[in-house]
Amino acid sequence: MTTEKTTVCDEDQIFKLISDWARAVCAEDLDRIMSHYAADATIFDAVPPFQIKGAEDYRRTWEAGLAVLPASFDLETRDLNITVSGDLAVAHWLYRFTGPEKAHPALRSWLRATIGCQRRDGQWQIIHEHTSVPFDPQTAEAVFTHDP
Amino acid sequence: MTTEKTTVCDEDQIFKLISDWARAVCAEDLDRIMSHYAADATIFDAVPPFQIKGAEDYRRTWEAGLAVLPASFDLETRDLNITVSGDLAVAHWLYRFTGPEKAHPALRSWLRATIGCQRRDGQWQIIHEHTSVPFDPQTAEAVFTHDP
Repeated sequence: MTTEKTTVCDEDQIFKLISDWARAVCAEDLDRIMSHYAADATIFDAVPPFQIKGAEDYRRTWEAGLAVLPASFDLETRDLNITVSGDLAVAHWLYRFTGPEKAHPALRSWLRATIGCQRRDGQWQIIHEHTSVPFDPQTAEAVFTHDP
Repeated sequence: MTTEKTTVCDEDQIFKLISDWARAVCAEDLDRIMSHYAADATIFDAVPPFQIKGAEDYRRTWEAGLAVLPASFDLETRDLNITVSGDLAVAHWLYRFTGPEKAHPALRSWLRATIGCQRRDGQWQIIHEHTSVPFDPQTAEAVFTHDP
């Protein structure tokens, strides 16, 4: 019973982490976004570079990323799944940017997101993130979707 | 001390799972590949569909995937990272297909792989997999790499 309660509470903490991450992105608050990442996190981002080792490098990617997001946007999430055991969590979900600039490149597709979180000194931190869309092996083009 | 030993042993089991998965792919042994997935696994594959819910659907994707792999190939892995706690594991690595048909589409890039594994009835199973390459937001093309 105690274990079950703890897990539910842990899942809630991961849910809050993801929610706060989304709010921080919408607020374009770089410090708040980065507060969720472990210093040694490895990132496979939707756009190059191929892999990013360390939150410091990822901060620069986010800085460039925030600069090309539309002036006004929101973030829609679906199909969130969280699994927790001990001091480790795995979560995956789909999200997309929404907003009035319908033709903006950032709004053209849902994205697939996966994170691994580790509890360190009582604090959950993202140790790995993987975001992407699939690609068409025939054309080598990214496959965007409005209806995943 | 016991906990540490257990974790090392668990990491070894995840390493073996990934190694066996790779050998099964090289042997084009569909049953052996699929033996590592939980029935309710969610897959974000490198190629469409956007997401796959359940091992049964993923089996069909693999069946189609194996049919378009080169006649002879091997699988090279690097940057493997495994984290385990309780009954959950997160692993990420890079891999590529290698072989004599240098111009084959399947050999054109490294891929980024992430898995979440859960121990169920003493057996580690993949509950989530995410494989991808990044895309160029300017051209909407997949970004392949020979040197990640």
